[in-house]
Amino acid sequence: MNEVIDTILNHRSIRHFEDKPLTTEQIKTIVTCAQAAATSSFIQAYSIIGVKDKEKKKRLAELAGNQEYVAINGHFFVFCADLYRHTIIGEQEQKDVTLSLESTEKFMVALIDTALAAQNAAIAAESMGLGICYIGGLRNHLDEVKTMLKTPERVIPLFGLAVGYPTKITEKKPRLPFEHIYHEDEYEQNQDVYREQLHEYDRLISSYYYKRTNGKRQDRWTEQIANMLTKQNRMYMKEFVQKNKLNLK
Amino acid sequence: MNEVIDTILNHRSIRHFEDKPLTTEQIKTIVTCAQAAATSSFIQAYSIIGVKDKEKKKRLAELAGNQEYVAINGHFFVFCADLYRHTIIGEQEQKDVTLSLESTEKFMVALIDTALAAQNAAIAAESMGLGICYIGGLRNHLDEVKTMLKTPERVIPLFGLAVGYPTKITEKKPRLPFEHIYHEDEYEQNQDVYREQLHEYDRLISSYYYKRTNGKRQDRWTEQIANMLTKQNRMYMKEFVQKNKLNLK
Repeated sequence: MNEVIDTILNHRSIRHFEDKPLTTEQIKTIVTCAQAAATSSFIQAYSIIGVKDKEKKKRLAELAGNQEYVAINGHFFVFCADLYRHTIIGEQEQKDVTLSLESTEKFMVALIDTALAAQNAAIAAESMGLGICYIGGLRNHLDEVKTMLKTPERVIPLFGLAVGYPTKITEKKPRLPFEHIYHEDEYEQNQDVYREQLHEYDRLISSYYYKRTNGKRQDRWTEQIANMLTKQNRMYMKEFVQKNKLNLK
Repeated sequence: MNEVIDTILNHRSIRHFEDKPLTTEQIKTIVTCAQAAATSSFIQAYSIIGVKDKEKKKRLAELAGNQEYVAINGHFFVFCADLYRHTIIGEQEQKDVTLSLESTEKFMVALIDTALAAQNAAIAAESMGLGICYIGGLRNHLDEVKTMLKTPERVIPLFGLAVGYPTKITEKKPRLPFEHIYHEDEYEQNQDVYREQLHEYDRLISSYYYKRTNGKRQDRWTEQIANMLTKQNRMYMKEFVQKNKLNLK
């Protein structure tokens, strides 16, 4: 164990922050850490937008499903998959890059690049004693988010990252059993083992909720996930992404 | 600055490892750190396959474009976007989750979840004095990779992560200017500023190569990227992903 591993294992999502802005230096450190992440073939296919304007933050909080911590925090970062930069590069270098940029492969590359950078930012912030929360709710209404942030074609705001001084620390939720996530040499082939791991985890999660709520809640994980997945959420995404000239080919 | 930020900023891709396996404890720590990452609505949409079998590693190295360090390292992890688990959950809970799992939105969620977990693994490994290299080359021939790792439907091996004891340390490559990656309140609207930042970066990268190669190389970044993007790489990906019943709707 070391300080880095301690920081990583101590992660929990923070949903209550002081209304105290990060310093320019803190922001710069967090973004520089994001940029230090690996990037596929050095493509650097992301941008980060820091939202300071209070009205914009308030509106983003509404769009994300009335999440107050999107408006009240130390800083709000929006992580964007970005292949607009590469469109401009194609123009400047007079090369035909369109087919490549419109491929599902490069869409995946941009998403992965963005997420690797964001996780570096998250860990860096947490190491500074700050709390973080990823905001996927930004994808509820991407048309309005894009208009607000004036992002060009081939830029998709993927998620927000609220960072700040925590006022309320939440508990860590237990993850799926190690054996269920980690396979050796091949994916688990025994369906009985696979399903029993899910049951084992359900028992763990039920008892976690039971303890945390003094017996009021006892949900199983598989039940939560199945209920979530019956809702058809953000089904406009395919069309939206393709309208932005990504994931077409 | 602290130990965590030092570790993050010290990242470089390592492409030469000792042939010395990680211990079970090291592997467990790395995977546990991966699992500690945030996950969208607690969906946990990834799996990790550790490849130990020497023949499999050798074949993966060939498939990834003859990258020797895929075969010779301390451990080779394959990070997979995984919505198969959620297919099983739908069956068990007798809920119709198909439309959700086939959406572009959930495909994006699975990619982001996987990448966040992987970056935690990378940072954890680096904090233990190990080197890492992401292997996107795994996506060159995903049909064969899937067959080898026996991954079910709705599981996409996204990239490898080679981890081990470095035998040769590479230099860090300078990233895009902070001002080009980081915007405030809205995406940079001034095209002259935007393009000048790319030129500034080209000068930096040229002089980096010039120094490193004693004047033999002087490539610009935009030139490298434009050349890479004129190659139509992995154009089978859209069909492959959809054949695996993801990114359909």
